[in-house]
Amino acid sequence: MKVAKFGGSSVASAEQIEKVANIIKTDLQKKFIVVSAPGKRHKSDQKMTDMFIQLWKASQQKASLEPFIDPIIKRFTEIVEQLSLSFTIVGEIKQSINKLLHMEEAPIRKLDALKAIGEDSSAKILSAYLTSIGLEARYVNPREAGVMVSDEPGNGKILPESFEMIYKLRSTKGISVIPGFFGYTNDGKLITFSRGGSDITGSIIAAGIKADLYENYTDVDSVYAVNPSIVDNPKKITTLTYKEMRELSYAGFSVFHDEALIPAYREKIPVCIKNTNNPQATGTFIVSEKKPSEKCVVGIASDTGFCSIYISKYLMNREIGFGRKVLSILEEESISFEHAPSGIDDLSIIIREKHLPLEKEKQVLERIQKELCPDLISIHRNLAMIMIVGEGLVRTIGVAKKATSAISSANVNIEMINQGSSEVSMMFGIIADDLEKAVQSLYNAFFVK
Amino acid sequence: MKVAKFGGSSVASAEQIEKVANIIKTDLQKKFIVVSAPGKRHKSDQKMTDMFIQLWKASQQKASLEPFIDPIIKRFTEIVEQLSLSFTIVGEIKQSINKLLHMEEAPIRKLDALKAIGEDSSAKILSAYLTSIGLEARYVNPREAGVMVSDEPGNGKILPESFEMIYKLRSTKGISVIPGFFGYTNDGKLITFSRGGSDITGSIIAAGIKADLYENYTDVDSVYAVNPSIVDNPKKITTLTYKEMRELSYAGFSVFHDEALIPAYREKIPVCIKNTNNPQATGTFIVSEKKPSEKCVVGIASDTGFCSIYISKYLMNREIGFGRKVLSILEEESISFEHAPSGIDDLSIIIREKHLPLEKEKQVLERIQKELCPDLISIHRNLAMIMIVGEGLVRTIGVAKKATSAISSANVNIEMINQGSSEVSMMFGIIADDLEKAVQSLYNAFFVK
Repeated sequence: MKVAKFGGSSVASAEQIEKVANIIKTDLQKKFIVVSAPGKRHKSDQKMTDMFIQLWKASQQKASLEPFIDPIIKRFTEIVEQLSLSFTIVGEIKQSINKLLHMEEAPIRKLDALKAIGEDSSAKILSAYLTSIGLEARYVNPREAGVMVSDEPGNGKILPESFEMIYKLRSTKGISVIPGFFGYTNDGKLITFSRGGSDITGSIIAAGIKADLYENYTDVDSVYAVNPSIVDNPKKITTLTYKEMRELSYAGFSVFHDEALIPAYREKIPVCIKNTNNPQATGTFIVSEKKPSEKCVVGIASDTGFCSIYISKYLMNREIGFGRKVLSILEEESISFEHAPSGIDDLSIIIREKHLPLEKEKQVLERIQKELCPDLISIHRNLAMIMIVGEGLVRTIGVAKKATSAISSANVNIEMINQGSSEVSMMFGIIADDLEKAVQSLYNAFFVK
Repeated sequence: MKVAKFGGSSVASAEQIEKVANIIKTDLQKKFIVVSAPGKRHKSDQKMTDMFIQLWKASQQKASLEPFIDPIIKRFTEIVEQLSLSFTIVGEIKQSINKLLHMEEAPIRKLDALKAIGEDSSAKILSAYLTSIGLEARYVNPREAGVMVSDEPGNGKILPESFEMIYKLRSTKGISVIPGFFGYTNDGKLITFSRGGSDITGSIIAAGIKADLYENYTDVDSVYAVNPSIVDNPKKITTLTYKEMRELSYAGFSVFHDEALIPAYREKIPVCIKNTNNPQATGTFIVSEKKPSEKCVVGIASDTGFCSIYISKYLMNREIGFGRKVLSILEEESISFEHAPSGIDDLSIIIREKHLPLEKEKQVLERIQKELCPDLISIHRNLAMIMIVGEGLVRTIGVAKKATSAISSANVNIEMINQGSSEVSMMFGIIADDLEKAVQSLYNAFFVK
């Protein structure tokens, strides 16, 4: 039994929906289908969800709403028309929108309900189309499916009791098409997940029904071993572990909405990233465990936008709680940090620059200076992080040598190395300007030579 | 104006004291001399301080005291006799001991006062000897010198007002010989520093009189670039910065009592480690700053006896305060840790094994498990740390490459790398059994080739 989730680009147009139907038709194991709202059909196109957000904003400003409703209806009409489906679907969508706009409800709840129409309509259209081509398919509302969430508009969290309810879906006959992105509170209020939440729904359904596989259809053939904007035609990754995926996605690999995989991860459901536009491609599997292989490095991720605070104090390591106090100051100032490697008399704190805006920098440095009296405190901006990722990497002699040699031979200085804290990765900090040449050299060393 | 401190082996016998006098005689800049208690004359010998501690123990147990007093007196008598000094010194020592043993005083204060007799007598003997060979020398009691300390028996801390008082010593004529290791509280109680505290006194006097140089006489020609028990005839280090010294002493280079250098460090007094038995040797200078040099690595230190706790949790980096909570648990359990490098979903905590005895291990792991619910927690014992130390190392391309290559070529796996947290060092964690071959290979790479 499989769960297949189709992202925005996979349901962006009638042509795309036909491809989705074809994929479903050829594999009857795909019994549970989760869909996003229609995404972009081309670069300058709008995502349906953004159109709904604009409509909501206009309604808050008491602006004229037709200019916002009309394009939504037009787009659904085109899809329904091209798929030769009944126009009653479009009528229902129109009705839902109008009903919502005139409802007495807190604005934030109205926003959630409006945004959800995109996914909801996608699911209705797809199930109607699957029926029209002779498959036994049915639209299943998230409430009926059992997707129960906490009452946090725009940021719902799945309730643990959901999974038991979802498990009962297993006995459903035919194909269930479930809209992603939203669920319901215990007292029936519609709540969306955070952005990108269709991945969350897919993962929840897969975990709930204890699927054999969770297929996640996007518009790429696979996850690549390195960022294709840095290296041309990089190798495809066929199998990744969850941990490897996490490490890669930390530093620039944005295949997945970060928290989306938790439910699948907990149930150890294998995930496969596939391409709706090229379903023959094997895709990339994400699994709990894999056999150790000789080539232990699976990918090289990289990201810019980091800075570091460097603190030095003679005999720091004798001052019990020094590190904890620094981290407490950051916590009190609501600055989340990435890492805090320490030396004997030194401590570095790596922070994403967006979390330490210039206006906060002064206050944080002053507090550290005043409360902990270091000998030296300095801040370095414009850093990049490179992650070399692979299970078994820590137990393979020579990986560090290969990596440091590759970076040196690109004539790049290594500002920071963090190895051993993670079982599956090795992290290097460099000056952001050197990022491309360092990554290219690393890719050559681990994947080409 | 120089301060010279002579350690236990330098005043262990009359022959050694003659060497010390010769050193002082040939350099009239050495106006302030700080001495330890007589140390070992040969491997199986006893240090005077240990003899006093045994005497104190016997007195606490109401045992017969002669067997403990006699060897002390005998040793001082031998020294005084060989130096052709008046026996009144020995009489005074005997009197001091007896007076103390019969004094009504808290045992812990009695211990401090007894222990201090070793240094005090050394200073008296040396000043008498210097006078006898025609130098203008005078014994100066720490109270007279201005060494005022907190009321913590066995662990006194210098009071800030001391330095101003000590500064006045500059105008003293001739040579002042000051016993190391102890000072006085504001209300006149004798208090010792922690063990090895003659280095502390030397550093305090040097800082107080704002010496041009603080010479620290031991029984080695210099600090070596690597542990001589691992590499035969290693290179000598001519100049070290304070920071480099600290990093080296962390991992096995025990030239200095750790906190001893703080006063000198704060006043930026250069320190020179010299050999009483070979005063012609240049020794090793410890300075605040030095010119950047091409050979940036000055030494390789290493130490065993480490363990690491490894904690892994999916999406750990999203859990604000996770790291801080782990460190708080350790603090609450009074376990001081060395480093806590973190990955995305992982955290390692490096601890000296002596700080995490087996009986505490269970409780700590259970608390972390219960309070933070990680996916995985494990402990690895029998680790060794290697520190590659040198100012400028972080700004030199290729150091990491050289180091990792050397370790790999010794066929040793690198469990951990911590670079960049310190400006002057790079740390490697390996399995303790591999220590020798890894250090030898590193030494070859950085100092021989």
